[in-house]
Amino acid sequence: MGFVVAVVGATGAVGREMLATLEQRKFPVDKLVCLASPRSAGQKVRFQGKDVVVEATTAAAFAGVHIALFSAGAAAAREMGPVAAAAGAVVIDNSSAWRTDPGCPLVVPEVNAAAIKVRPKGIIANPNCSTIQMLVALQPLHKAAKLRHIIVSTYQATSGKGHAAVEDLLEQTRALAAGKEVKPAIFPGQIAQNLLSDWKPDTTPAGEGYSEEEMKMVFETRKILDDESIFVSPTCVRVPVVNGHSESVHAKFERPITVAEAIALLEKAPGVTVDARPYAPGHHPQPVHVSGKDDVFVGRIRKDFGDPNALNLWIVGDNLRKGAALNAVQIAEIVASESRQA
Amino acid sequence: MGFVVAVVGATGAVGREMLATLEQRKFPVDKLVCLASPRSAGQKVRFQGKDVVVEATTAAAFAGVHIALFSAGAAAAREMGPVAAAAGAVVIDNSSAWRTDPGCPLVVPEVNAAAIKVRPKGIIANPNCSTIQMLVALQPLHKAAKLRHIIVSTYQATSGKGHAAVEDLLEQTRALAAGKEVKPAIFPGQIAQNLLSDWKPDTTPAGEGYSEEEMKMVFETRKILDDESIFVSPTCVRVPVVNGHSESVHAKFERPITVAEAIALLEKAPGVTVDARPYAPGHHPQPVHVSGKDDVFVGRIRKDFGDPNALNLWIVGDNLRKGAALNAVQIAEIVASESRQA
Repeated sequence: MGFVVAVVGATGAVGREMLATLEQRKFPVDKLVCLASPRSAGQKVRFQGKDVVVEATTAAAFAGVHIALFSAGAAAAREMGPVAAAAGAVVIDNSSAWRTDPGCPLVVPEVNAAAIKVRPKGIIANPNCSTIQMLVALQPLHKAAKLRHIIVSTYQATSGKGHAAVEDLLEQTRALAAGKEVKPAIFPGQIAQNLLSDWKPDTTPAGEGYSEEEMKMVFETRKILDDESIFVSPTCVRVPVVNGHSESVHAKFERPITVAEAIALLEKAPGVTVDARPYAPGHHPQPVHVSGKDDVFVGRIRKDFGDPNALNLWIVGDNLRKGAALNAVQIAEIVASESRQA
Repeated sequence: MGFVVAVVGATGAVGREMLATLEQRKFPVDKLVCLASPRSAGQKVRFQGKDVVVEATTAAAFAGVHIALFSAGAAAAREMGPVAAAAGAVVIDNSSAWRTDPGCPLVVPEVNAAAIKVRPKGIIANPNCSTIQMLVALQPLHKAAKLRHIIVSTYQATSGKGHAAVEDLLEQTRALAAGKEVKPAIFPGQIAQNLLSDWKPDTTPAGEGYSEEEMKMVFETRKILDDESIFVSPTCVRVPVVNGHSESVHAKFERPITVAEAIALLEKAPGVTVDARPYAPGHHPQPVHVSGKDDVFVGRIRKDFGDPNALNLWIVGDNLRKGAALNAVQIAEIVASESRQA
């Protein structure tokens, strides 16, 4: 009664988190197929207490696969996503490859689960980590008061760039502690005790001056909320944190909304934990506390001084879990429930 | 032809920076009086290649002092500022003690130098570090297009909380590297590889949910720009950086303003260095590059997607220099030039 599940990119930071999440949430896996680039084939990963040997990602590897969770980057997803779909798998892809494709739903289960049903290409896209946690927190407010404009500054963890980026942060930190020169391996400069915008520039005319990461937040917010009239003004910044993205958000709505109303709405919202304590030093969601948790944490909900229709919020989420692996597995759970209903 | 200058709080992070700045800028010091709390009295600090013994801050110590630079905290400034002024010194205070006093000008020389002249109490207040760098960057745009609303998220360095806070960051970092438990000494929690809002809560009714640091940005912006109609929506965050504050700013003006116009205005502005390169990874002002520099660095100037009257900017400054010591010494230079003109 279970499923044959493939994890593509099983040796990466998000791939490993996908395996852990499938296990923790007791996803009905009859057979697990772990795939990666030829370079990583032969490595072993752990699942349900056993070693699983990683195979190279080939068309043949998808035979009999019901659900394929991809976290192998955009190029691999563009090439192998349709191959997996043609072999009969429902593809859930964590890369940016299919997010803008009108034939692929872009889904945060708490926000737009219904979109999963319409997937003419057999591919469902998992949004960008920064967008996911922002929308889990803002959608309950949007439903009540209609979002008009989101001004967001991010404080993004190094794990969002993968294992090697975390190692780069830690190695740079050790070098500084030893009084040695910092030699960046993955980042385009010093990230230890520093801040970087390290994402590629967006190359569309609309995105002049913006990074790809920032333009993802603009485009994906509109697609997921199915509302082209919402504006997003993003500034994406990498901070020397291992895991857990934070966001400072100024959200402007169509009508006035009070702090009390926002807290009440968020306390009922799925996937959200509200920190409604009065402000005091350290009384707010923090990356080190949120890392390893499923929920998106929202705190520091404050009225705005300039605009009665706006609120300021502080949103923290585990970028590898809800920002990637958990969101993908939640989509897989909905796909799995469809098959059982059919 | 020089001045008797007192530095109160000479052993602190900002006090030492004041001494270095007086020396570097060749301020005409005839005699230097270094003062601190009784606990620090007897310590030595360096100035112009010589050791200067630090004395306890008493009324008698201000006899004959022309200019007293205070960086000793609000309590000391509240008590000893008027004592120094009564002894005939012009007091330039880096704490928050006198900033809101209508009888004390609050000055960023590039922005409102003229305000220095009217100082009925003999005390001039140095603004908060976050406000100074934001206004050095925004005032040239304000003059051209009139600011209406500033939405700012800060990324503030540990040096803003003093020597001991930097040491706390470094010690926590070493503990993490050694796999040991983090034991915060100064911060209210983990700051290494984490983010904190560590400032005290504001206790005024208007400031509900906001920190003192945030409310300083609201109040001080209006006082310095002499415009009560400007709104500021601040979120202040401490990041694991040693020195150099960064700010993500969404600035809304009375009329549309283009990126090209903003760059042209900022390139002519005093105290500003513009990074006008097209966006690429790492091509933006960074704390590790700006630390030790006098100017405020502005980059990532981008049009806004939601509002033709708004721009998004990334502003980085050395919080100990322009954010504190340099700004105070620049005020002292203007005071000194008055005496020479008189």
